[in-house]
Amino acid sequence: MGSRVLPEPVERLIEEFSRLPGIGPKTASRLAFFLLRAPKNQAAQLAEALQQLRERITFCEICYNISETSPCPVCADDTRDHGLICVVEEPLDVVAVERTREFHGVYHVLHGVISPVDGVGPEDLKIEPLLERIRQGGVREVIVATNPNMEGEATAMYLAQLLAPLGVRATRLARGLPMGSDLEYADEITLLRALEGRREI
Amino acid sequence: MGSRVLPEPVERLIEEFSRLPGIGPKTASRLAFFLLRAPKNQAAQLAEALQQLRERITFCEICYNISETSPCPVCADDTRDHGLICVVEEPLDVVAVERTREFHGVYHVLHGVISPVDGVGPEDLKIEPLLERIRQGGVREVIVATNPNMEGEATAMYLAQLLAPLGVRATRLARGLPMGSDLEYADEITLLRALEGRREI
Repeated sequence: MGSRVLPEPVERLIEEFSRLPGIGPKTASRLAFFLLRAPKNQAAQLAEALQQLRERITFCEICYNISETSPCPVCADDTRDHGLICVVEEPLDVVAVERTREFHGVYHVLHGVISPVDGVGPEDLKIEPLLERIRQGGVREVIVATNPNMEGEATAMYLAQLLAPLGVRATRLARGLPMGSDLEYADEITLLRALEGRREI
Repeated sequence: MGSRVLPEPVERLIEEFSRLPGIGPKTASRLAFFLLRAPKNQAAQLAEALQQLRERITFCEICYNISETSPCPVCADDTRDHGLICVVEEPLDVVAVERTREFHGVYHVLHGVISPVDGVGPEDLKIEPLLERIRQGGVREVIVATNPNMEGEATAMYLAQLLAPLGVRATRLARGLPMGSDLEYADEITLLRALEGRREI
């Protein structure tokens, strides 16, 4: 082996794993060695799943949620209330709200929050498409369901200012959610209470 | 979305990530969503690295280290001392020994340790191929460099018994205080081994 430490394909896989968030070089090499010794098809199945991800997943042209179709099943569903839009930060937040089984409106996924520290401004989020949706008419209420933390609150305030002149009711989730927590991990009941207790911004 | 929680390709990738050691469902979904938003080629590059792993990596037919060729570069190297075999548990241990730049013998990778608790017996390790290498002659010394823990020690003892009748010198790595450590914080066993192995200054 001499100057070379590990065979190139192993080094390369460790490098690729290390590029994932929260995976350091030690974990990356543990994963690579696990796959070297795992049944031959496990690495292949993971590779296949990765390829399918980018080939089959797109963003809904209306709500920007991830979907296999555009419009997504929710936006294409005539039985849902298209006059009520729940604005969330991430696709997983849609999953969380859907779990309550009590929300029958539609969604809008911002894909992030305003965060000057991370260099994320309003123009990096799907805010303009949201305003455009509202300008097209038929929207009564926008529930701003950003996370109850500093960035989420700031983003909600920013949205409220933009929504005010458009004549739609802007609400936010009730403060049933503990500050500093993450919407994604909220239990159904807490989230349901928060939905029921939503208030004018 | 209704009954379906996430698009199938996303669910599938989360499932595949969850099969990796130390990666729970939460981490798996974080990784999947990271890749959904990452530059388009990152998932593809990880997929490619995974495929290459199983296509290009094999085990050396002599030492069972991972390699792109068989025999591996170390076993194929005539300038190395083929009469001196360093027995290690895992391929990463070879990397550790190579880093010393002072070992010029060859290796033998067991691919594990004897561990009755985990159901790993001698027949699950590359022990028989090691004995066969020695029976073919030319080996003077076997350095058993298994890890200094219970399983590693037990495996070393087991190997020593098998090596004795073959007429090769069997040695193990010295036990003692690690360089840069503090006597005050050394555990009893390490200190005991360091005392036992004391040398003239």
